[in-house]
Amino acid sequence: MKTDNNKELRVSAIKNGTVIDHIPAKDLFKVIKILGLQDIDNTMTIGNNLESKTQGHKGIIKVSEMFFQDEDIDRIALAAPNAKLNIIKNYSVVEKRKVNVPDKVIGIAKCVNPKCITNYEANVKTKFTVLDKEEITLKCHYCEKITNRENLRLQ
Amino acid sequence: MKTDNNKELRVSAIKNGTVIDHIPAKDLFKVIKILGLQDIDNTMTIGNNLESKTQGHKGIIKVSEMFFQDEDIDRIALAAPNAKLNIIKNYSVVEKRKVNVPDKVIGIAKCVNPKCITNYEANVKTKFTVLDKEEITLKCHYCEKITNRENLRLQ
Repeated sequence: MKTDNNKELRVSAIKNGTVIDHIPAKDLFKVIKILGLQDIDNTMTIGNNLESKTQGHKGIIKVSEMFFQDEDIDRIALAAPNAKLNIIKNYSVVEKRKVNVPDKVIGIAKCVNPKCITNYEANVKTKFTVLDKEEITLKCHYCEKITNRENLRLQ
Repeated sequence: MKTDNNKELRVSAIKNGTVIDHIPAKDLFKVIKILGLQDIDNTMTIGNNLESKTQGHKGIIKVSEMFFQDEDIDRIALAAPNAKLNIIKNYSVVEKRKVNVPDKVIGIAKCVNPKCITNYEANVKTKFTVLDKEEITLKCHYCEKITNRENLRLQ
């Protein structure tokens, strides 16, 4: 039986949109959740656990007709601080961007402290100061406990 | 600036593994969750909101070196009853399979009734009888309330 396996895959090339590359494989679905990609109608292709020369295994996301705001891009820094974005127009890369870890993180991550007010009051948004932008170390504005990349869970 | 957009996409062809096609676009991430694909190390490619001749927009999942058991396949029927699987060996389709909606569903879906014991007792697994395999209508074994595809949430 002949496969159309290769042919099908060509649909995944994007003409216009954004490619997010160099996402750590284990954090790919966190990035999807942060950007809300599970709820949009844009055509997208996602690869995970791909060989990477620089970081073991990586994930990549390509979203057609989507051009993110700086604010959105910086939100993914918590899960993928080394991600690189290529902006695609007419099949060519017209711009390259890096993510920046922001100074403050509001309403994306959960506080690791189960007794923190943000974990039992539904209308109090989490708010953190970023102490370390390399390791992603977040200090809670309310309880001052430290949440880091290892125990980071998304709201 | 020249893009390597097309070249990159070729990594997504799989030599051996499983292609799950004809997933309703809005249910793609439910299927990923049901199969636990966010937690495995296999190389995978996912496309969503792709044009489909038969069903508006669809999702597709390709997982390398993964061959699902019948039981796993039938679990995705709740989210994607018309999904079709191609088993790939050496770049060729060697087998085609359909999903079967099971008669009983245990521990995948949440009961729609907030007062159901399965929603407040952590160690009671949900259990449903499937009343309608086309529409996916589930009757709770404990409270007898009906959960259907529209309000289906995963555990």
